[in-house]
Amino acid sequence: MEKRLQEILNDAEKVRGYPVSVESLVRFLSLLIKYQPVDLWALIRHSDEYIRVVMGLFDALHNRNYVEVNESGQISLTKDGTSLAEEIGARALDESLLVDSGKYGLSLPPKFKEILDTMRKIYTEVVPKDNFDQAPLLPEASVYKALYITQRGDASGKYIVTVGDDDLLSLILAMTGEPKRVMAVDIDEQVLGVISECSHKMRLPVDVLQHDFRLDIPETFCGKFDTFVTEPPDTVDGITLFVSRGVQLLKKEPDKIGYCGISTTACPPNGIVQLTKNFAAMGLAVSTWLFKFSEYPPVRTELKHIEVPDFYDPFYPPSTVWYVSDLVRLKTTNSTNPLIKGIFRGNISDYEGDAKRFR
Amino acid sequence: MEKRLQEILNDAEKVRGYPVSVESLVRFLSLLIKYQPVDLWALIRHSDEYIRVVMGLFDALHNRNYVEVNESGQISLTKDGTSLAEEIGARALDESLLVDSGKYGLSLPPKFKEILDTMRKIYTEVVPKDNFDQAPLLPEASVYKALYITQRGDASGKYIVTVGDDDLLSLILAMTGEPKRVMAVDIDEQVLGVISECSHKMRLPVDVLQHDFRLDIPETFCGKFDTFVTEPPDTVDGITLFVSRGVQLLKKEPDKIGYCGISTTACPPNGIVQLTKNFAAMGLAVSTWLFKFSEYPPVRTELKHIEVPDFYDPFYPPSTVWYVSDLVRLKTTNSTNPLIKGIFRGNISDYEGDAKRFR
Repeated sequence: MEKRLQEILNDAEKVRGYPVSVESLVRFLSLLIKYQPVDLWALIRHSDEYIRVVMGLFDALHNRNYVEVNESGQISLTKDGTSLAEEIGARALDESLLVDSGKYGLSLPPKFKEILDTMRKIYTEVVPKDNFDQAPLLPEASVYKALYITQRGDASGKYIVTVGDDDLLSLILAMTGEPKRVMAVDIDEQVLGVISECSHKMRLPVDVLQHDFRLDIPETFCGKFDTFVTEPPDTVDGITLFVSRGVQLLKKEPDKIGYCGISTTACPPNGIVQLTKNFAAMGLAVSTWLFKFSEYPPVRTELKHIEVPDFYDPFYPPSTVWYVSDLVRLKTTNSTNPLIKGIFRGNISDYEGDAKRFR
Repeated sequence: MEKRLQEILNDAEKVRGYPVSVESLVRFLSLLIKYQPVDLWALIRHSDEYIRVVMGLFDALHNRNYVEVNESGQISLTKDGTSLAEEIGARALDESLLVDSGKYGLSLPPKFKEILDTMRKIYTEVVPKDNFDQAPLLPEASVYKALYITQRGDASGKYIVTVGDDDLLSLILAMTGEPKRVMAVDIDEQVLGVISECSHKMRLPVDVLQHDFRLDIPETFCGKFDTFVTEPPDTVDGITLFVSRGVQLLKKEPDKIGYCGISTTACPPNGIVQLTKNFAAMGLAVSTWLFKFSEYPPVRTELKHIEVPDFYDPFYPPSTVWYVSDLVRLKTTNSTNPLIKGIFRGNISDYEGDAKRFR
């Protein structure tokens, strides 16, 4: 039994070149027992594991006939898989209460429901661009995020800056009527065009600034904001860079707030460790970390480092939400300083590199 | 106006010897506008600030007649306070949706409701001891915590250890029927006696171990568990020590889980920064951080470093819940190692010391 386990883990590691733990195998099987027959994307969504771990396990278990895939792409345990699960003590993982409680028990008040209706229309005007690593959240996810930010007291009367804004959060926050002003900063003129036009039509207190975050923040905007919000590329460098720029934009005072989206699907556990090191090195206190808060739409133009096994091609792209990010709230202290200053010459979309660095 | 603000902040800092930011003043006033007339304890509960900041502000604002306290201890803004709030742009902070959604949208299923009924009785048998810095959670808070742990898949089929157990979480987890075995480790023989007796009566798979966590974990227990749960003294050293011991008790594999309660009421922001540094140094990835998850009962035998101003004495002890802790979920990686090894000779209840070290 020990040998069989070790073979599965070795196989799983080989598939994506990333190590896989016994515990990950147990959790994978526990989810399968609960949800089978289940779509690969639903499996990823229910898991909070790094994508390479899930894909490695899926492929290894499939190759060794512990799982089977039916004609509509639904995955189940085989007889061998079921006995494997029993042997290693994997039981049905029932996280239904967490899943059913939705957005951590929040529900949209009427004002936010109206905002959502408006945003659904506006979202169709933005075409995500692969070369900017863009992938907007679902409109609903963005509106819930704005609600959370508002409820934590980080919007009302504040100067807010969005560090990257293909989610159009600037418009949503401004539409709540809470912030004093919002500035949307993005590299993409088309996104800024949509924001400008809509804010003009709706007479919202929104400014736009075209900027590439690999370049330093222009001096005039440094130290001017109370709250920043960012949903960066899910690499350690990408997140560290965008949070650094956010910190530069905040007033140099304690107790200012930054929100950062981080996906554990795209960022390996050792990358998360490095990120918390970086946050601490910046003198930022983690204040809240809500796992799986923000959903991305099911169809993505760029699937990043997930490589779908050949035999799963007919069931791609996914038709359900599978990619979500955690919402992290950070608080400045009297020692807060950006980690990255000046021009950044690294690669903020090197998912392959992160998988190697953070094994 | 700038001068007046500076005077308030200076005053607030003098009261408890701890610096206070403009943002903290704005948030204090925003909560007052929303909830006035309001009890001091409710104000602390609604705030997520370090206790010295809240007490400093309360005292400074009271001395300068910006707030007044009525005959039943309820705090309100005076006319001067209202105009101050207007001047600095403090608006009513409405976090009702967060507050009303209770335990992040979770509600107890029937099995957990029964457990709660049983636990309410058993809790009365444990007398918290000041000399062990004990302060059990409310039974309801512990049962919700067990539900959360179960829903995240960290209980079913697992070997769980409680690092300190005056909350009797070992019993609660065992009563769910999910874990393989639970070991309760505590310094207090009376607590362990209650656990032993109850687990015997109910035939639960619970072991007890009397141990002082300042001493090293006995070799036989190291590396044996899948999940640890701890609610340590809310000092940086206390939390770091208990988490270190928890890590030692976990199997030396990636993806094992530790739960740690941390109160931002007792731990200053720079202390939180230090803690995340320590977690990262241990190779632990923060996986979830739920602010204000676990409530403590209103009457505490030891109020730690909160010093109630003299004029507030008649309204002490509080009659409502005011002290809560965040629930932090940590995940081991392939580089996880305890930060503190061997005997710990420091002071794990030096709240005064933390206030000085983490200004």
